[in-house]
Amino acid sequence: MDTRQTLRAHCTQHLETLRAEGRYREFARLEKIAGRFPRYRWHQPGAGPGAAREITVWSSNDYLGMGTHPAVRQATIEAIHAHGAGAGGTRNISGTSPLHAELEAELAGWHGKPAALLFGSGYMANQAALLALLAALPGMQVFSDAMNHASMIDGMRRSPAKRHIWRHNDLAHLEELLRAADPAAPKMIAFESVYSMEGDVAPLHAICDLADRYDAITYCDEVHAVGLYGPSGAGIAERDGAAARIDVIEGTLAKGVGVVGGYVAAGADWVDYIRSTAGGLIFTTALPPPNVAAALASIRHIRTDGALRGRMMQRAAALKAALDAAGLPRLPSASHIVPIPVPGADRCRGVARRLLEEFGLYVTAINYPTVPRGTERLRLCATPFHDDAMVAELVRALGAVLRVAEAA
Amino acid sequence: MDTRQTLRAHCTQHLETLRAEGRYREFARLEKIAGRFPRYRWHQPGAGPGAAREITVWSSNDYLGMGTHPAVRQATIEAIHAHGAGAGGTRNISGTSPLHAELEAELAGWHGKPAALLFGSGYMANQAALLALLAALPGMQVFSDAMNHASMIDGMRRSPAKRHIWRHNDLAHLEELLRAADPAAPKMIAFESVYSMEGDVAPLHAICDLADRYDAITYCDEVHAVGLYGPSGAGIAERDGAAARIDVIEGTLAKGVGVVGGYVAAGADWVDYIRSTAGGLIFTTALPPPNVAAALASIRHIRTDGALRGRMMQRAAALKAALDAAGLPRLPSASHIVPIPVPGADRCRGVARRLLEEFGLYVTAINYPTVPRGTERLRLCATPFHDDAMVAELVRALGAVLRVAEAA
Repeated sequence: MDTRQTLRAHCTQHLETLRAEGRYREFARLEKIAGRFPRYRWHQPGAGPGAAREITVWSSNDYLGMGTHPAVRQATIEAIHAHGAGAGGTRNISGTSPLHAELEAELAGWHGKPAALLFGSGYMANQAALLALLAALPGMQVFSDAMNHASMIDGMRRSPAKRHIWRHNDLAHLEELLRAADPAAPKMIAFESVYSMEGDVAPLHAICDLADRYDAITYCDEVHAVGLYGPSGAGIAERDGAAARIDVIEGTLAKGVGVVGGYVAAGADWVDYIRSTAGGLIFTTALPPPNVAAALASIRHIRTDGALRGRMMQRAAALKAALDAAGLPRLPSASHIVPIPVPGADRCRGVARRLLEEFGLYVTAINYPTVPRGTERLRLCATPFHDDAMVAELVRALGAVLRVAEAA
Repeated sequence: MDTRQTLRAHCTQHLETLRAEGRYREFARLEKIAGRFPRYRWHQPGAGPGAAREITVWSSNDYLGMGTHPAVRQATIEAIHAHGAGAGGTRNISGTSPLHAELEAELAGWHGKPAALLFGSGYMANQAALLALLAALPGMQVFSDAMNHASMIDGMRRSPAKRHIWRHNDLAHLEELLRAADPAAPKMIAFESVYSMEGDVAPLHAICDLADRYDAITYCDEVHAVGLYGPSGAGIAERDGAAARIDVIEGTLAKGVGVVGGYVAAGADWVDYIRSTAGGLIFTTALPPPNVAAALASIRHIRTDGALRGRMMQRAAALKAALDAAGLPRLPSASHIVPIPVPGADRCRGVARRLLEEFGLYVTAINYPTVPRGTERLRLCATPFHDDAMVAELVRALGAVLRVAEAA
């Protein structure tokens, strides 16, 4: 065989299959306009830079628009002047600035935990922390919600722990699996608080009750809740008064906080253990000081700005009400995330394309493997900056495009 | 059992073992002084911010000092004003700016490849690209240099490919393993160009000769060479005229380029295949536009500034000559990386601590698992900004501390 030709042929064929199934992803080129979020310039493929068209983005995870907040921009600029653009090393090899330590202390305090540890991304935080903890004790078993994020699955799969999957948010099923497991085995229950593709929220106290009853530790991914819920924006665990019952809270700096990076917050020994054993932390360059400074400024603002959270919730409620009033379908979200079912990868992608090309509205089509086949959807997020006119414009366009798509 | 108590006890005990073996890592808090690289302020544990002490760092991977280059700082500031602090989504969910596409085109052109793909880190690039390619064909076998980086090992281990490990840079051993393998199996040879902990360089053409003979594709990690070698700084493959013979070049934006992020450059179909299948890319937030803009400005400068590379090589040569003249031990490095052997984790860490506390010189002690036990070392890198006085100061201090450490 010719390895090079065979591999290239495999790649080409796989890409053709993706195209045939309507699952080939083209990354739209979207240029954020910092002072006018959620307005962007869309650079169409093949068109020159001058041909960029102004549009409204409805699928940003910069949920609070903090990425363009003046305090965040100012902190970045100060840090770039003081420290330069990169960390210049891993955390252990000259890459830990006082800013890193300051942000870790801030995150720990925010979540009411003794310690926190930064990673380059939420993906790495989940992958590394779950692997480290699940590999720590022999015979560990992990109970994982069926809709947990790919990064959690990655960390669990790579560990030696036996993995039990409970039906999404189905606590009767979780208890059934816990009851059937060896009572002597050390256990972890791993779940999210807000599920990105459903917009629903986990019953944290009920899960912790089961954890107490069956002697399991708890690991909660709050990436879609951090900044958005609770009196200081620390997440659903804070909102529900459940933080003290959750052993490990994992979060992100790339969504509500508006920057980049991920972290875990937990007991000091646990965090120090993860810090000392996780390859994904030891063997990678630390977050650049300007990003760390930006996240720190963002969190300090978020903790005190309940009004911003209130505006986001109000805009999400307005979007849901307008969709309902127009008779448009949506999944029963209990959060700021509003999914619109459009089954069929081709159809879903076609709807998203028409919204962009004909109406200047960017909405991401979510298809397999992010969601199961047949449950394709558009995923909308209203930020504090999506005003009434934008909501009305979106609902009108959705109505027009979905009705045509149904008739097709 | 009480899972929580048992896990905590395990963590505590493991940390005590690390301390007892001298392998417990404390991250020194080092504040880069942007205008005066490689000078930093060292914030001692427990001391107030005012007690920070100015020191010289000898272990930064910001090899060219590009992290603090005025053009890089300016590009960051422009991007933060135009685009804000974060990408706000994955590459597929509104996180691809025109800057991302521009940087990918720049990287492809730099390495003479049809396409390139950005990742959040070099770690993720290796992990995701190796996994994607090695899982593509059934029966794939990979031949891996014994000193390949943890991120490469991670990607290979997670793939279904059978892994053969050849003794570091030992091509007779590589050929022996290739000859013994099933001739019909698709094969990959995976290696680095410059090895971080040895400072030695792989014979790229000889490896490619073997790849041709035994029908293997080639994957080369150039993270410690990017920016530093070759007429335009694209790496050892460029320097040796071997880029066209290497199928996949992996690189970083966090070392010679001075910012953060990683990438692969390869054929268009290969890159598109990795882009379309790698979970570590699809399920993580894109690099923030200010970091992308910084990397772009840095690379554009690097490509034309051969004098900067020349100064770095000259400083590395001056450091080696001064160490030799003083009769100090060093590994026979063929690159800008200068390792000083100090066997014994405790002793190595003690030497590094004395250099910092008594002489104001930061040098990282490298111990297991980064290098095998018994081969602990200090890892020095001279940048263009380490002047003669700094070299002399370091050599004097090393002489004093190593002689005492030997006598102990």
